Amino acid sequence: MITPSVSDPSPRRRSEKSRSATLSAALELCAENGYGKVTIEAIAARAGVSKKTIYRWWSTKGAILLDAVTELVASASPLPDTGDIEADLRTHIGSLVRLFTSPVVGPAYTGILAELLHDERLARAVNDELVIPRVALVYQRMRGAQEQGQLPPDADLPLAVEMLYGPLYYRHALGRVLPDEQRIETLVAHVMRALRTPGRS
Amino acid sequence: MITPSVSDPSPRRRSEKSRSATLSAALELCAENGYGKVTIEAIAARAGVSKKTIYRWWSTKGAILLDAVTELVASASPLPDTGDIEADLRTHIGSLVRLFTSPVVGPAYTGILAELLHDERLARAVNDELVIPRVALVYQRMRGAQEQGQLPPDADLPLAVEMLYGPLYYRHALGRVLPDEQRIETLVAHVMRALRTPGRS
Repeated sequence: MITPSVSDPSPRRRSEKSRSATLSAALELCAENGYGKVTIEAIAARAGVSKKTIYRWWSTKGAILLDAVTELVASASPLPDTGDIEADLRTHIGSLVRLFTSPVVGPAYTGILAELLHDERLARAVNDELVIPRVALVYQRMRGAQEQGQLPPDADLPLAVEMLYGPLYYRHALGRVLPDEQRIETLVAHVMRALRTPGRS
Repeated sequence: MITPSVSDPSPRRRSEKSRSATLSAALELCAENGYGKVTIEAIAARAGVSKKTIYRWWSTKGAILLDAVTELVASASPLPDTGDIEADLRTHIGSLVRLFTSPVVGPAYTGILAELLHDERLARAVNDELVIPRVALVYQRMRGAQEQGQLPPDADLPLAVEMLYGPLYYRHALGRVLPDEQRIETLVAHVMRALRTPGRS
């Protein structure tokens, strides 16, 4: 988010207003018509901004929708710290599932995931802007749990993240229903067990 | 595979030859030009069969490529039974990773996964023809391991499959490098631990 500055309020405020209108318009059009039918022209018309303004910030509709999804994911899938790592991961995974299946974020993220399979630049952007910053928060929370003795100091945190997010992406990739609250609870409990129990490798 | 019958050999043999030529042509074109550029016309020309023949068996290029991928996956990702469930799962996951990244199967399966996100019929076909039959073999092998006491009788086998396949689909969905042999070994060891250790839920 661009914060309006005191010395130069109105152009920046206008600029932030255009940006926000563009992101909302893109999500609305994607929810209404599907990712494939979204165009920069239609986004500009719906947002009431010029195409020139849009192209100043973004080069493709995928980039616009990624920004829109990233903002919503950041605000809607917090990683709480209640002192109970297992409960906090359940909350986090549950909010991710709700986002994946929401009528606003779902179609946009599905469209982005389909497109990135054929577009390396979009794939990099999804990792750099959306996934890696979110995963960094998970690592941070898990390191806190290690300090509190809830996870072993040598727990394989990258693997933990893949085992937690993996089943969501597996089901989504195959067009299946995402796990409900009870399955999420079972998943998180299994991952915690895998991390806590000493064993081979 | 259609087995040539003794009473009526030549039409069936011809038919099987056309089918096999069609599947090979589809995979070749996908590897050469990318999934998006494959057309039924080009497949027919490369295979030396008529479009009418192709449309007798398949309605879309996605269906042709799914059949081609399914045959290769069935023959190239066996689930051995050496008596060691952990070693056998490592072998199985390793062969899946090799298929995902092979220059023949990789582009075709990636294209199918992108398309199924917008095509419910293809999504159902991928589950029914490719994934569910393969997963049934994993269940069968795991039930054998339960009988041999290598896995607890109440192990959550559907979750085990999701924890094993999930990280592959997660990395693939985000355009990342798939796990190498060492990471596969660590993953399988973690999943085994999660299943073997008694605990909550």
